[in-house]
Amino acid sequence: MSYSFLQDLECPKCHKVYSADAVAQLCECGSPLLVRYDLAAAKKHLSKDMLQTREPSLWRYHELLPVRSPENVVTLGEGMTPMLPLKRLGPQIGMKNLFVKDEGVIPTGSFKARGAAVGVSRAKELGVKTLAMPTNGNAGGAWATYSARAGIEAIIIMPKDAPKITRNECAVNGAKLFLVNGLINHAGAIVGRAVKSHGWYDASTLKEPYRIEGKKTMGYEIAEQFQWEVPDVILYPTGGGVGIIGIYKALRELQQMGWIGERLPRLVAVQAENCAPIVQAWKEGKPDSQLWQNSSTIAFGINVPKALGDFLVLDAVRSTNGCAVSVSDDELLQAQAKLAANEGLFVCPEGAATLVAAERLRSEGWIKEDERVVLLNTGTGIKYPDTVQVTVPMLQPDDELPVG
Amino acid sequence: MSYSFLQDLECPKCHKVYSADAVAQLCECGSPLLVRYDLAAAKKHLSKDMLQTREPSLWRYHELLPVRSPENVVTLGEGMTPMLPLKRLGPQIGMKNLFVKDEGVIPTGSFKARGAAVGVSRAKELGVKTLAMPTNGNAGGAWATYSARAGIEAIIIMPKDAPKITRNECAVNGAKLFLVNGLINHAGAIVGRAVKSHGWYDASTLKEPYRIEGKKTMGYEIAEQFQWEVPDVILYPTGGGVGIIGIYKALRELQQMGWIGERLPRLVAVQAENCAPIVQAWKEGKPDSQLWQNSSTIAFGINVPKALGDFLVLDAVRSTNGCAVSVSDDELLQAQAKLAANEGLFVCPEGAATLVAAERLRSEGWIKEDERVVLLNTGTGIKYPDTVQVTVPMLQPDDELPVG
Repeated sequence: MSYSFLQDLECPKCHKVYSADAVAQLCECGSPLLVRYDLAAAKKHLSKDMLQTREPSLWRYHELLPVRSPENVVTLGEGMTPMLPLKRLGPQIGMKNLFVKDEGVIPTGSFKARGAAVGVSRAKELGVKTLAMPTNGNAGGAWATYSARAGIEAIIIMPKDAPKITRNECAVNGAKLFLVNGLINHAGAIVGRAVKSHGWYDASTLKEPYRIEGKKTMGYEIAEQFQWEVPDVILYPTGGGVGIIGIYKALRELQQMGWIGERLPRLVAVQAENCAPIVQAWKEGKPDSQLWQNSSTIAFGINVPKALGDFLVLDAVRSTNGCAVSVSDDELLQAQAKLAANEGLFVCPEGAATLVAAERLRSEGWIKEDERVVLLNTGTGIKYPDTVQVTVPMLQPDDELPVG
Repeated sequence: MSYSFLQDLECPKCHKVYSADAVAQLCECGSPLLVRYDLAAAKKHLSKDMLQTREPSLWRYHELLPVRSPENVVTLGEGMTPMLPLKRLGPQIGMKNLFVKDEGVIPTGSFKARGAAVGVSRAKELGVKTLAMPTNGNAGGAWATYSARAGIEAIIIMPKDAPKITRNECAVNGAKLFLVNGLINHAGAIVGRAVKSHGWYDASTLKEPYRIEGKKTMGYEIAEQFQWEVPDVILYPTGGGVGIIGIYKALRELQQMGWIGERLPRLVAVQAENCAPIVQAWKEGKPDSQLWQNSSTIAFGINVPKALGDFLVLDAVRSTNGCAVSVSDDELLQAQAKLAANEGLFVCPEGAATLVAAERLRSEGWIKEDERVVLLNTGTGIKYPDTVQVTVPMLQPDDELPVG
């Protein structure tokens, strides 16, 4: 029995095929590479029933992941995050079947753990000793974490405004960490020059093919958690876009295996008003995006002015009859408070953005009352202390409580 | 079929029995009450095999939990946290079978979610509208979170030095939050006076019987994750002690059901040097502890100068041939860094304390090389940003990386 049905790497632009068993970065043509599997063989070997008794981590889908030997799996138990119905808030805003897939309940508190777990595992399998990457914070924290567990050296550069706690994560896990007085694309340029001169593995978003394989497991899990009857709409906060690309890839793979039917969820890319290159390209009917000037948003994870995989995001959105929506920082902070106060969900600002988009699409009639709608919350709110303003009364030990 | 085999409440001191279907706090004699189940009936109904296909949350054990109707379950998908082997660090420190049970991977990032999920669910079932509690931070965050999801009003008091992020958690989830210029016992005294005058539900540690039922599921999970062959030693950071009391209770229940054998893990209560009342009582052979004067530790969750359940903790430790160990703040911060750098585990300082204790017990020969040893990490390090000191070089966009 194969542990993995990994086959090869294919360029989605020029369709050149590469071996999966050597270190690969971008295609010669500059496009990211996508991993292919022998899905016919996987289909023969694997059944939905077999999954039922497997461990509740993303490795339950190991046949459809790129790690050939279980010995190379670097895991902290990531995956099978909760799918939570919003029974109070949903009906209040006209959605009877509204859910949050909560990626806050995962090692490092962010969905970035998925990409790092699979990416680092495969890097280990390929013999990588040193990797480098730019990050808006959470990905760096996750890759530092899994690199430590794998015994791989990690070199990480993040914008000086990235969430402070992610610096701690990188540092405590022993990564070599640098800040840049700029945005993630500036960090990326520095990494690009460094990997070229040092021969390091470039773990930048989509510059290695395996991170997306970790992220795609969100798609498998959503399908499995809905008993293989996929929901109608999935809203995804979109920066680099690997999550939405991955979910789309997963759904296509499940179709090819005959595990789900023809209908796919409409995928919605949600961006911040002041950093909405995908939304703009979608509105203009363009296949890829333009660099967004002077971008800014409190939802730092989606402050990505130009994503390498923009064309894949736009394809995923269009192929599923989805759409792209931008929301303001004020709106998403209000949504964050509403999710917590009504449902006990303290989500990250990126995740909160999806609620704003869902409400708007519902009010426009694009989402119907009975449709099953999934908000993808990409991380826990506890990594973003500055998004909540608190003033708390101070009591002395002999005081009485001034309430009731 | 019963969803729960809840039977009644019993006082472990004077053995008075109470109905489980009315709101109950302490026994008349002042002792906490413990929940009893009809374990003979549960044994007939439930099998280990049935568990295998259940959802990966603590509710998989619902027959042995106190919520009678699934409609009252208030859940964010908590439980079945990872059991992670320390394959690199373990052998380095002479332990071939060292594990971390990682309660960082749970809603709110702390094991307190378990007690809150079950405690709030049962409070909802009993018709509670308002609850109040003192907290060292994480429990308050968790109870605020689950109360929000349940639609219950939560009034929470924490020491001014409690981790700041837990203030945010309480506030964003809509709790009424107060600080006290003192420690958790001062907060507890204020709550005690307030619940008396307002008739609120007192959700203080062990003052309602159901929090412990959530915590005990760690014991069930450990047994299940080791295929019902329990490990040799479990080390637990001990403040209020509900976790260790709960694990011991769970193991006894599993024994009564015949699911595990006679041998129990030796339970080790780990405390901070400057707040070690349980350790002192254990050394002196006393049945309960004395109030620790001027307590202080960076591991704030175990800064509990006098625990209401101290006698139950000491009984659990002694009955299992365990022990009690105290460690210094310097030692636990070093252990925190070591766990992260070697295993990618960014644990909370309380969790790190268990590694120090394990190393010491190993060097004394109390733990043998081949024994299976579980460190209970009670929460994620990301809630404690101040435990990691970081200085990071700042680059300009045109700089080269000063490494390699």
